[in-house]
Amino acid sequence: MNRIRIAIVGYGNIGKFAVEAAQAADDIELAGVVRRAGSVSKQEKELDGIKVVSDINELGKIDVAVICGPSRSCPDIAEPLLRRGISTVDSFDIHTQVWDTLMRLDAAAKAGGAAAIISAGWDPGSDSVIRTLLQAMAPKGITYTNFGPGMSMGHSVVARSKEGVKNALSMTIPTGTGIHRRMVYVELENDATLEQVTAAIKSDDYFAHDETHVIAVDSVDAVKDMGHGVLLERKGVSGKTQNQNFSFSMSINNPALTSQVLISCARAVVKQQPGAFTLPEIAPMDLLPGDREKLVKSLV
Amino acid sequence: MNRIRIAIVGYGNIGKFAVEAAQAADDIELAGVVRRAGSVSKQEKELDGIKVVSDINELGKIDVAVICGPSRSCPDIAEPLLRRGISTVDSFDIHTQVWDTLMRLDAAAKAGGAAAIISAGWDPGSDSVIRTLLQAMAPKGITYTNFGPGMSMGHSVVARSKEGVKNALSMTIPTGTGIHRRMVYVELENDATLEQVTAAIKSDDYFAHDETHVIAVDSVDAVKDMGHGVLLERKGVSGKTQNQNFSFSMSINNPALTSQVLISCARAVVKQQPGAFTLPEIAPMDLLPGDREKLVKSLV
Repeated sequence: MNRIRIAIVGYGNIGKFAVEAAQAADDIELAGVVRRAGSVSKQEKELDGIKVVSDINELGKIDVAVICGPSRSCPDIAEPLLRRGISTVDSFDIHTQVWDTLMRLDAAAKAGGAAAIISAGWDPGSDSVIRTLLQAMAPKGITYTNFGPGMSMGHSVVARSKEGVKNALSMTIPTGTGIHRRMVYVELENDATLEQVTAAIKSDDYFAHDETHVIAVDSVDAVKDMGHGVLLERKGVSGKTQNQNFSFSMSINNPALTSQVLISCARAVVKQQPGAFTLPEIAPMDLLPGDREKLVKSLV
Repeated sequence: MNRIRIAIVGYGNIGKFAVEAAQAADDIELAGVVRRAGSVSKQEKELDGIKVVSDINELGKIDVAVICGPSRSCPDIAEPLLRRGISTVDSFDIHTQVWDTLMRLDAAAKAGGAAAIISAGWDPGSDSVIRTLLQAMAPKGITYTNFGPGMSMGHSVVARSKEGVKNALSMTIPTGTGIHRRMVYVELENDATLEQVTAAIKSDDYFAHDETHVIAVDSVDAVKDMGHGVLLERKGVSGKTQNQNFSFSMSINNPALTSQVLISCARAVVKQQPGAFTLPEIAPMDLLPGDREKLVKSLV
């Protein structure tokens, strides 16, 4: 079997779980992990036997770069790789910027003869696939996406990035019909005030549209749980028949699922034409290993 | 807008709802309905203003034939159409014969420069997409598909086809972990016995693998309800993280959903390369009308 050679770029939460997902996949070869020059020498125990470098060029020929940095850095990391012909997958999660990012990476991918799957976590990502499918099954109607209760990694990273914040945890609390409350638990720097940190967090675009509460705690680690959940609901009309009801829910470890979707997409991206795609634009079967006959017989 | 010109081939339960779904779709043009020569003159009230013919050639240029006959007849109807360059969609539901049918129609489609999406109802169909996606999200684990309680149209047709059966309704009852009971309600012909009908039904491949009970009733119509449901459950492993839990359920009008999926697939099939495909091999976004930017912005 010709294994797909991947590099994991970034070694935060997502990167750690992406290493595990890659190790669990027989058809994936983990060429190595790319991290900041200052962190290369860290070599945590779980990285024993894995090549850790600060420059992807040190890893030889790579089929797919799995971008595991924070969302805001994803496009800048992916674009030059695509132009050099290395396909990429990322879990870019800023919904309002998905389209512009898609167009930017599409141009780069086509220039380099590579492919990108962007926003490939669970939301955006697998939830987007479910929303698309439900709309095809009942074209008229409303789909509500209710998140949580659970930690939002993207929101936590943004809260942590604010001046005066040592550590932060942003919990998403569903209040129904797709409306959410954000409970942000922060560990403050000595010279910071809760008022100033609250103002900085609430004015950020990530939080500005939701009811947000910022609470100071002694230890963020003590309240952290990476479990998460979602409830997608649609009541709609198939043809002229009303009251078609659909519900999708899950209870999952958040970074583990995001990383698994990324690794499944690493498999799918090498099957695509040059260009950039979102997950609903990918045939779901491309995400799986194994031959077509076996997959059709077991899944259809 | 260039509308997709479709013919609906067969006017049973699925055909009736397919007409409605086609009428509800702005980007679909219903060229007409093809039915048996003996039924053309029936012209039910809801077909007022719709061309009804016995030969698809009377409908002019057709982009897609939506095959709405019983499953067993689908491949024989689709194959010659594909060879003539008319794309097809069907909801062929005999799981054990999907692969062979796919290969047969793939050859015909490639010969004719057309495309086919087969087994495009809800199971096989949209459920197959969910099963595929869940396996990509948690590669290790088991997905249980629990049907019902609800009427199985395929099983009802098969039961009705047996000698001595005037009318039949086969109800699917979930008993958990993907195991089902079949409750078959039959209206007997005057000269038929329940024993003989029961033996014929139980020995049919459609029923042979499930616990099946056949019950004689005075009127099948009096007990018929076309509502149906499904519960898809998976508990699995993402990467090395156990206990990822997923659940998809729906409560739907069965023929209305099947027909809607068929019409959404009529839209998708014209975007495919020549060949035959199952639903998990189609990018979900191909099922929807409208331009890519709008869809990505609203669904991803």
